[in-house]
Amino acid sequence: MTLTPPALSVFETLESEVRSYSRGWPAVFDQARGSRLYDEDGHDYLDFFAGAGALNYGHNNPVLKRALLDYLERDGITHALDMGTRAKRAFLETFRNVVLRPRDLPYKVMFPGPTGTNAVESALKLARKIKGRESIVSFTNAFHGMSLGSLAVTGNAFKRAGAGIPLVHGTPMPFDDYLDGQVPDFLWFERLLQDSGSGLNHPAAVIVETVQGEGGINVARTEWLRGLAEVCARHDMLLIVDDIQMGCGRTGPFFSFEEAGIVPDIVTLSKSISGYGLPMALTLFKPELDVWEPGEHNGTFRGNNPAFVTATAALDTYWTDGGMEKQTLRRGEQVESALVALCAEAAAEGAVYRGRGLAWGIGFPDPRRAAAVCRRAFDLGLILETSGPRSEVVKLLPALTITPEELEEGLRTLARAVRETA
Amino acid sequence: MTLTPPALSVFETLESEVRSYSRGWPAVFDQARGSRLYDEDGHDYLDFFAGAGALNYGHNNPVLKRALLDYLERDGITHALDMGTRAKRAFLETFRNVVLRPRDLPYKVMFPGPTGTNAVESALKLARKIKGRESIVSFTNAFHGMSLGSLAVTGNAFKRAGAGIPLVHGTPMPFDDYLDGQVPDFLWFERLLQDSGSGLNHPAAVIVETVQGEGGINVARTEWLRGLAEVCARHDMLLIVDDIQMGCGRTGPFFSFEEAGIVPDIVTLSKSISGYGLPMALTLFKPELDVWEPGEHNGTFRGNNPAFVTATAALDTYWTDGGMEKQTLRRGEQVESALVALCAEAAAEGAVYRGRGLAWGIGFPDPRRAAAVCRRAFDLGLILETSGPRSEVVKLLPALTITPEELEEGLRTLARAVRETA
Amino acid sequence: MTLTPPALSVFETLESEVRSYSRGWPAVFDQARGSRLYDEDGHDYLDFFAGAGALNYGHNNPVLKRALLDYLERDGITHALDMGTRAKRAFLETFRNVVLRPRDLPYKVMFPGPTGTNAVESALKLARKIKGRESIVSFTNAFHGMSLGSLAVTGNAFKRAGAGIPLVHGTPMPFDDYLDGQVPDFLWFERLLQDSGSGLNHPAAVIVETVQGEGGINVARTEWLRGLAEVCARHDMLLIVDDIQMGCGRTGPFFSFEEAGIVPDIVTLSKSISGYGLPMALTLFKPELDVWEPGEHNGTFRGNNPAFVTATAALDTYWTDGGMEKQTLRRGEQVESALVALCAEAAAEGAVYRGRGLAWGIGFPDPRRAAAVCRRAFDLGLILETSGPRSEVVKLLPALTITPEELEEGLRTLARAVRETA
Amino acid sequence: MTLTPPALSVFETLESEVRSYSRGWPAVFDQARGSRLYDEDGHDYLDFFAGAGALNYGHNNPVLKRALLDYLERDGITHALDMGTRAKRAFLETFRNVVLRPRDLPYKVMFPGPTGTNAVESALKLARKIKGRESIVSFTNAFHGMSLGSLAVTGNAFKRAGAGIPLVHGTPMPFDDYLDGQVPDFLWFERLLQDSGSGLNHPAAVIVETVQGEGGINVARTEWLRGLAEVCARHDMLLIVDDIQMGCGRTGPFFSFEEAGIVPDIVTLSKSISGYGLPMALTLFKPELDVWEPGEHNGTFRGNNPAFVTATAALDTYWTDGGMEKQTLRRGEQVESALVALCAEAAAEGAVYRGRGLAWGIGFPDPRRAAAVCRRAFDLGLILETSGPRSEVVKLLPALTITPEELEEGLRTLARAVRETA
Repeated sequence: MTLTPPALSVFETLESEVRSYSRGWPAVFDQARGSRLYDEDGHDYLDFFAGAGALNYGHNNPVLKRALLDYLERDGITHALDMGTRAKRAFLETFRNVVLRPRDLPYKVMFPGPTGTNAVESALKLARKIKGRESIVSFTNAFHGMSLGSLAVTGNAFKRAGAGIPLVHGTPMPFDDYLDGQVPDFLWFERLLQDSGSGLNHPAAVIVETVQGEGGINVARTEWLRGLAEVCARHDMLLIVDDIQMGCGRTGPFFSFEEAGIVPDIVTLSKSISGYGLPMALTLFKPELDVWEPGEHNGTFRGNNPAFVTATAALDTYWTDGGMEKQTLRRGEQVESALVALCAEAAAEGAVYRGRGLAWGIGFPDPRRAAAVCRRAFDLGLILETSGPRSEVVKLLPALTITPEELEEGLRTLARAVRETA
Repeated sequence: MTLTPPALSVFETLESEVRSYSRGWPAVFDQARGSRLYDEDGHDYLDFFAGAGALNYGHNNPVLKRALLDYLERDGITHALDMGTRAKRAFLETFRNVVLRPRDLPYKVMFPGPTGTNAVESALKLARKIKGRESIVSFTNAFHGMSLGSLAVTGNAFKRAGAGIPLVHGTPMPFDDYLDGQVPDFLWFERLLQDSGSGLNHPAAVIVETVQGEGGINVARTEWLRGLAEVCARHDMLLIVDDIQMGCGRTGPFFSFEEAGIVPDIVTLSKSISGYGLPMALTLFKPELDVWEPGEHNGTFRGNNPAFVTATAALDTYWTDGGMEKQTLRRGEQVESALVALCAEAAAEGAVYRGRGLAWGIGFPDPRRAAAVCRRAFDLGLILETSGPRSEVVKLLPALTITPEELEEGLRTLARAVRETA
Repeated sequence: MTLTPPALSVFETLESEVRSYSRGWPAVFDQARGSRLYDEDGHDYLDFFAGAGALNYGHNNPVLKRALLDYLERDGITHALDMGTRAKRAFLETFRNVVLRPRDLPYKVMFPGPTGTNAVESALKLARKIKGRESIVSFTNAFHGMSLGSLAVTGNAFKRAGAGIPLVHGTPMPFDDYLDGQVPDFLWFERLLQDSGSGLNHPAAVIVETVQGEGGINVARTEWLRGLAEVCARHDMLLIVDDIQMGCGRTGPFFSFEEAGIVPDIVTLSKSISGYGLPMALTLFKPELDVWEPGEHNGTFRGNNPAFVTATAALDTYWTDGGMEKQTLRRGEQVESALVALCAEAAAEGAVYRGRGLAWGIGFPDPRRAAAVCRRAFDLGLILETSGPRSEVVKLLPALTITPEELEEGLRTLARAVRETA
Repeated sequence: MTLTPPALSVFETLESEVRSYSRGWPAVFDQARGSRLYDEDGHDYLDFFAGAGALNYGHNNPVLKRALLDYLERDGITHALDMGTRAKRAFLETFRNVVLRPRDLPYKVMFPGPTGTNAVESALKLARKIKGRESIVSFTNAFHGMSLGSLAVTGNAFKRAGAGIPLVHGTPMPFDDYLDGQVPDFLWFERLLQDSGSGLNHPAAVIVETVQGEGGINVARTEWLRGLAEVCARHDMLLIVDDIQMGCGRTGPFFSFEEAGIVPDIVTLSKSISGYGLPMALTLFKPELDVWEPGEHNGTFRGNNPAFVTATAALDTYWTDGGMEKQTLRRGEQVESALVALCAEAAAEGAVYRGRGLAWGIGFPDPRRAAAVCRRAFDLGLILETSGPRSEVVKLLPALTITPEELEEGLRTLARAVRETA
């Protein structure tokens, strides 16, 4: 397939230089169904990117689409801030019945605005209000968002520099295996907490991703997560799991922390919660933490009712039994087998793979190689992006609803791209 | 009309205490068309709230709805981050042809994420990056959003306290007429800027709303806005107009600053830009300010393509000629006449009205009266909210597409509510 | 008199470029007595500078010197941190009997370290601890010190930039007459405090100098000071008077705020408190504010006992009756008469004078003129420095013990310097 | 010896509750000579405290005293800000000839104000100005001072809380052996620096004490200090050694870092630099770092000329040859032998000793034991204080001029106090 980049377009002349994906994937996309994207020149692409994790059920999932069209056609209320609506009630009831109750999770549900960073900002505000302390601990290579509160607990130096002010009140701690097993888990963190002379401002909370997506698909072991929960409990800090990318089934279970058997104090969800790629986010917290005053945090688009409708449909369709979780784990094994074989090839020398559920990464010693693989894959009709602090990791994030055949096809294309860039 | 509040519902038991509108309007809304809302018990409400300014073209506007349904039905790509798409291209071209070119505005367009606070955060980041300075000047009673960057330039003490950290790098200056005409415009601000001993950190930028919506419908005079632009030019500060609530025609012209004849360096838009209540936001800036690196600011939902589709339809439908602006000004006169009469009544003693275009407020000496008026209006089938630092202002924000008859009806109901709460 | 600047000396080669006075006064000083300085080349200088206000009783005052020598000779303890010593007890008793009791001032006394900025840092810490709030209001052209806490409430942009971090938690308000009488006192400040939407973080305290020395000899009226005390009382803010330069009799009474009849919550003293130019500082506060934990603020040199000895001798010698105050006011009148005449001369066109007690300034329209006057005065044997944000004010700060003849001589030299630089 | 605490004295009624040493040592001290203190009731005390390290040459050292009295008697200028004086010139020349040149140290000399925290504040300002970055790395259990800049890099939580604002821009790293040898030196620190995704703001500088005095006599190994200097060089950070307590011969050589063979970029000195307990401090830096503008940092008491006189005398008397260093190391061996024996006693079970030169500590498992030892020692006529985050370390800081007999006496008293508190 040959791609002619579009002539100097309105994207180049009018849109800000801040655009990024459009540079790596020089096409003008038009339609999409399931795991396929179509550009206006008639090319189609297999999607191993899934809207950066916002399309766990594929593009324009037909069941969700039907619910959405019905709602819009009958003039269901679209925009409602935090007014009571039938669509919101249906979502809340379904979320309670399908997600919370079967997992014995006691959470209250907050609509903090429709994006992940809204959810993170609200979680940090709440934690600080409850504990009366400013400091938050985050982890190396964390990614939590672009507004100033979230950015202060994000690791990436390039993104942080964009703030234009010194980012304070956050302290990084080593993520699982950050120091290559040379240091016992939490040795440093807990020593700082125990020592009143350490200079660490006592944190209100710890915010963590169970698998760091933007950070390079770094997978925390379940025992590490349990250890972290214990550190938090011992030292009067709230545990916030940012499940924006890894929740909604990405790692298998609905919440990525289920396997570890922990119950975080606060959980953020966004990306795939609406199921259809519509902006929506949730902040969940234990009921005793619901100390908000009415209106203390708000936002214009926190009542995006079409998203509530597709979210409800997604939960009803995929999460009333354990089928989705089992399927994701099976698909994950399929990916793992392929990556085992691929990393054993001479063409992939030095590459390492890691992942959980349907979030996988291949780390290359040289970041330029990761970029080359993605570029070649795109030419071959496969959408893949990089992640990691130096963009050295090729990230595989297919829709959970991908068929085994599509998955196989994509993994074959990936292998070819690796070989052809060796 | 009698309203029975719903029995202890999932809103009370599951949704966080942070919810606010649902407390003042104890109904479960179901459908909406134009300026009418319908609850599940069959009551209907006239809407003088317009989704806090996000529904300038009314609920589920049929022209926009048709475009949206068509797009969704043919599986137009929904979620695309900042990839190039046909829907985005169409929007950019239309925005250029219908909005920017006719007004000789040279702006580049950034998609900063789908909410107003995303746009404000990106504007502040950009200004700080360009000027290499941290400090921002905002105005008394400003409202710019709930994430930490935006909240630091927001006036409301209750919202600010929610941050849980000291909000710094922002300094408030008096908004137009804040000191009741006792002080020449910008005397204090400019004296601070001129005096190297003043203690004011030299600001990177000034952020202003031309009419403060949440602040209580405080209207800046055009000469004050021009004066402000001159102060910014003289002292090497960028001028950011936050047109999130007052843009998209709310005050008459597409941008609220057009009447003043100024060209801000940076403009934020959100709320009614999609036209359908779908989350979408824009940050506009002069081309020489486009110093972003690719990906320096990003966000999952910055490519909400259904919103681009309705936004394009809204521009095509309402902004290709000057009709909408004229109609809004006419409707505004209709409101003003009614408020003149109302404030002259004994029942409204001490009340003052102010506004521009279709953004109006009635300030009451006692905030409890404003609350009572809104409560009574709701019982009478009219949706109205309060604003201002003490919630002492009844805010009128009808859809721009409201008919003269609907407007009359609402103004009559308002007058009745005022009388019945005297 | 001709002065040969010293050959490239150890000051040029070894001392940091940060040195400043040695540049304007290129001599190597050796001895000093009363209001006279002597350099190593045998020149003598009349002193209208008094160690920047640290030598109110002149250089090497013989009474204080006797007490100091006696103490040192008998091996009185020199360095004692905050241990109990006879010298500290004598000072405390004398300070209570001579200063506090006759003025009905109930203050507790803290030794915060031996410099003014130590005193200011401790005052701000205490105020923040008591009120649980971070924000402090200071005034335009304030000067409170060079460590980060004090610098954040100092106005001078050049000094502030030296911090290397954004200085936050402080907000400047207009000092008395800052806006040239165009604005009622405290209109802006109090409006911000009353308005919960103003965006001003509620301050813990206000810090003020009654006469701004470094700021250019700006004299607050007594009614303004009383008004400020009332604003503080009304809005639950502590009033801190920084009397480091203007206390110890500089304006006439021992404390500069006595004339206004106010009782600040916290007072800082330093500079002339030891009376001999030895490092010493005090923080005074109302007893109910003494909420310090033992050791919560400390410092190695807070027990500089030789300074306690000279401080005690100074109080005993000069402050047991009202003689010093009367004499200072008389000397002040002598200065004022001379300045009235001088500013009326053609040579001083555009110059304005202002002052109180023995703190006076002549402001010139062009800062270069102020520098020229000081330079010429130095050549003529008179030590004078500039102050003000642009160094546009020639500052007169003679010792309180200066004789009428010396004062006359200095004023004549000043007049000559003004004329010769016209 | 029995001590009757003084009746309710002016210390209790007038001095602030912040006083601390006077609580542990309830005497009123009067005179002092060498290593002996005398209270007004005729008791004498052997001094193992040396003014918290400010009296390395003992109390009222007769050689320094003679120089000081001569200077004062002949009316040598006392207070001179940063004017050139003969006393300052003599000091600078002596410091160059006796301290800098023989050690091949190229430093410029700054007089930042007379206290340690002035020196630290100036060092941090300079580092931030040079690097244009805000962040500073300090170490666990560091102590650098009480003003806000210094406090932000100090570890003690109790002191930090006194700030009343969140202390930011500082990040603690593990001091040598903090993690009990379980982690390679600088593994964590350097990993953070190498990883652009770590979330550590790139520091302008690292500030370190070679032996942490207040932190509990924690001794950094010379190889650790060299490693630290290399980390700084590799990552473009300035190395600041805070030698306020450990400089001036406390550990043997004049600078405590000499043994490690490193040349810090910036060095702070205070405490014993004047030699007589008079307030004085220095900031030293490599000449290429002398980017200060004249007057960018200043302070009233930075020209405390009597201190320059005693400082010069101290250098001339003790540092023109290597005798003082050798003697200190010999005395240190004497202390170490005694502590080896003491810690082997049953009465000292669990106690550990550590130290270098004449700075030693005995750490007890239970902080109450350390307090009891000091209390008992005081009753027995020996002045000793505790340090460490929990005050669990008895600190031995005798004057460098102590005789072997006095040292023996003190060590015997210490041993008795340990035994009697078992």
